[in-house]
Amino acid sequence: MVHLTSNDFSNGNGHLPQTIEKIGVIGTGVMGSMFALLLASNGITVSIHDRSEQSMQNTAAKAKESGLSDKIIVCKDYDTLCSSLGSPKVFIFSLPHGGPGNGVVQTLAPHLQAGDIVVDASNEDYRVTQKRQSMLEPNGVHYVGMGISGGFNGARYGPAMMPGGSTASVSLLLPLLQKIAARDPQGRPCVAHIGQGGSGHYVKMIHNGIEHGIMSALAEAYELMTCVGMDGDAIGSMFDSWCAEGPLKNNFLVEISGPICRTKNSKGGFLLSDIRDAVVQDANESEGTGVWANEEAITAHVPAPSLAAAHNFRLASSDMSLRATIKPYIGVLETEQMYPREKQKAAFLDKLHDAVYASVLACFAQGLDLMARADEREGWNIDFASVINVWRAGCIIRSDYITDILERHYSASTKKVHPLCGEDVSRDLRRCMPALKSVVIAGLEVNAHLPCLGASLEYLKYMSCETLPTNFMEAQLDCFGAHGYDLKTEPVRRFAKGPHHSDWSVSA
Amino acid sequence: MVHLTSNDFSNGNGHLPQTIEKIGVIGTGVMGSMFALLLASNGITVSIHDRSEQSMQNTAAKAKESGLSDKIIVCKDYDTLCSSLGSPKVFIFSLPHGGPGNGVVQTLAPHLQAGDIVVDASNEDYRVTQKRQSMLEPNGVHYVGMGISGGFNGARYGPAMMPGGSTASVSLLLPLLQKIAARDPQGRPCVAHIGQGGSGHYVKMIHNGIEHGIMSALAEAYELMTCVGMDGDAIGSMFDSWCAEGPLKNNFLVEISGPICRTKNSKGGFLLSDIRDAVVQDANESEGTGVWANEEAITAHVPAPSLAAAHNFRLASSDMSLRATIKPYIGVLETEQMYPREKQKAAFLDKLHDAVYASVLACFAQGLDLMARADEREGWNIDFASVINVWRAGCIIRSDYITDILERHYSASTKKVHPLCGEDVSRDLRRCMPALKSVVIAGLEVNAHLPCLGASLEYLKYMSCETLPTNFMEAQLDCFGAHGYDLKTEPVRRFAKGPHHSDWSVSA
Repeated sequence: MVHLTSNDFSNGNGHLPQTIEKIGVIGTGVMGSMFALLLASNGITVSIHDRSEQSMQNTAAKAKESGLSDKIIVCKDYDTLCSSLGSPKVFIFSLPHGGPGNGVVQTLAPHLQAGDIVVDASNEDYRVTQKRQSMLEPNGVHYVGMGISGGFNGARYGPAMMPGGSTASVSLLLPLLQKIAARDPQGRPCVAHIGQGGSGHYVKMIHNGIEHGIMSALAEAYELMTCVGMDGDAIGSMFDSWCAEGPLKNNFLVEISGPICRTKNSKGGFLLSDIRDAVVQDANESEGTGVWANEEAITAHVPAPSLAAAHNFRLASSDMSLRATIKPYIGVLETEQMYPREKQKAAFLDKLHDAVYASVLACFAQGLDLMARADEREGWNIDFASVINVWRAGCIIRSDYITDILERHYSASTKKVHPLCGEDVSRDLRRCMPALKSVVIAGLEVNAHLPCLGASLEYLKYMSCETLPTNFMEAQLDCFGAHGYDLKTEPVRRFAKGPHHSDWSVSA
Repeated sequence: MVHLTSNDFSNGNGHLPQTIEKIGVIGTGVMGSMFALLLASNGITVSIHDRSEQSMQNTAAKAKESGLSDKIIVCKDYDTLCSSLGSPKVFIFSLPHGGPGNGVVQTLAPHLQAGDIVVDASNEDYRVTQKRQSMLEPNGVHYVGMGISGGFNGARYGPAMMPGGSTASVSLLLPLLQKIAARDPQGRPCVAHIGQGGSGHYVKMIHNGIEHGIMSALAEAYELMTCVGMDGDAIGSMFDSWCAEGPLKNNFLVEISGPICRTKNSKGGFLLSDIRDAVVQDANESEGTGVWANEEAITAHVPAPSLAAAHNFRLASSDMSLRATIKPYIGVLETEQMYPREKQKAAFLDKLHDAVYASVLACFAQGLDLMARADEREGWNIDFASVINVWRAGCIIRSDYITDILERHYSASTKKVHPLCGEDVSRDLRRCMPALKSVVIAGLEVNAHLPCLGASLEYLKYMSCETLPTNFMEAQLDCFGAHGYDLKTEPVRRFAKGPHHSDWSVSA
């Protein structure tokens, strides 16, 4: 086995070939099967392996339907799989995070040789990805953590892809990935080499953190629209109009909101009203990304209150038995109707649009702030403008106008400049923050639920404020813990405790 | 070396002696020195060791001043320290978390024998504590993680102490700890065996998470009082009145707020106004507990939005350069004055009191909810009523009325009953939640900062609501990810994904 130095993972193509002709797909569940067919239809000979014979046969049957039978090789074990591939061997898998991925890597490891490439297209914790990289890279094996977004429609229209890992391996993969990726309105493929190490999975985690924030803002907007007496059809039309033009133009989550609100149940009522409100995938760990994004914010000491508020809202929603138990005890603030006149209602809905937009920008700002700190800490060398471009199509946070202004920001300034200082972002926020304030107040009046909109307002206020009442906390800490404080007149000493201590018990 | 079984750590006193006569104190900084003198004045012969000769001499000099010279032995190295102690040897240290504690444990380990007790009185991450326990316990060494609260005044009046670890070791320590602990108004010492494993440090972490939440609520209240035109003297008097009677009676953080607000600078102005607003100890990791409490909430999937909001507020405050940079871009919502008439002002201040109280209860509820989940997960067997009683004096979250009603709750029901269902807690929240709503709305009108008060309001609303707009998120997840949903009419299946999937693109 050839032992490569770390240079082999960052400088050019090394000994890798120019193109990939064969790929092994491990696991033929929804995502694995999608990949097998996508790759086969792009001329790749795909060897598939799954513990379930039935699952492999289903994929083979789908390939047959698409006239791709000659491109699919069903492999009953890892030996067959490996011997069916060329040199270097290239594998891809998409599995539940943690254990299942670890299992594949452990089983596969003895079959791997220097130059082989393993693409982990799961949602995986970037810290786990980096552990696997440090296990495999000393043996010359390239481990690529590739975030993928697009939901199950990614199979039909192509997903956005965020591969992170050695330059050599991702450079080899890119021409192929560009063929199968979603394309933005200008026809550019939504895939790019994100950076070194676990950066691909990290950026996908950030994508999902932002996604969860936007989903909360939209759910809160949905409730507020029911509060002004709108039914599913009216709310659906409103979302359609937001998606048609303006700053939420072609925002994917807004786009699907119209149809969702209009969809009827078998009795002609609105299906949405029949659906239970328990969002369980964070609480039961089947998802992961939302949990990791919020852990990361805490660990990296980056304020991300909109993401945290959305996450807590989902967590609280998941335990509906607990909520039902608590309700008779303290459930005094029940959501009420507003009764605006038509003109007021139209003005409120305009403000609601701007409030949601401001909150969505706050979510992006928090996610990108996190990404900037991690990039610096880990030395991943992420090109932020190219990440923004990957998010232009195929992914859940796709949003034409917002990616335009963020790309302009990152093209004009370094990634170290906070997104809230972007020229377009800040211009829009100056306009929309008063609307956000007004909507939150109106919503609170009728006891609507506004965790993400409310947290976004607080975030935008305190991030842009030079004098916070946290001087009171400083005084308390000094009073009971002799922690020390700075005076406002003194030069800023970043993150250092102040030199002054007072005897606060001396009262006037 | 005798190898004990795990039973030796949970069943009675085992081979341990009945009383402790000698203790080794490692590190003679502020806390170590305090312990040395406290122990010496309670008849213990204290052997002290510090890497700094000067620091040891300072402690010895303080002992001399107090006529305790014969009780202090200065030890130049670990060998001297260990040979000066009896059998079993008992050590105590309080150091910065992480590295320094690890260093002491590693250096001390070769000197330890079965039956020896090491008391870690630092603020330490309970996961680190449990790692040290699993390293030392196979050799029969007892490692006690003891949370301590009381600030530097703990030296004078005794701290509240939260020792966690084997029953044998904590039983031996308790009589001594009871002598030096703070005492509640009825004279009961504020110390108890918290539970097994790292439970002592865990409970201290929860204490600090709650503490940070309360500090944020009070800082927000302070700003609101400045918004109605009150000066430091008037605000101080208001805090005094809150502390004098009612549900915030003898709340330590409220108690110190009066003097803090009144304290003057050298020119006769209010010192508080001179103090910079950067709270840095979470951002620079010198503290730890607030970071761990928020990480724990995420990891354990427990909604703790008031604690998260307070934490994010501190983090944002710490980077004042960033805030100053962002301000010219989006700083459009600056805090304004309210101009209430006298009667309105009095009514507002009454509501503010109730709003702060409701938010403080939300902080306690979140912390205790976290504690209940960890207790069940880790099998620590924490007696919640006795934790509440430990918090009755000496500690930063001391609050007479609140501990009364929480003790009643945990005496009347099992710890599995959510604190929001407590009879007194829920009665008070029913009364105070409308005030919290009203204050948050009034504060938002003038662009005051209300992260913790606002998050507490959302928390109390959604935890007590049976129908949240999160059904909208469920529909979105099903629409783009085929995640599946439940119908409201179906039986509750806790934390399981729903069985239904719809084609949401079919619009009416």
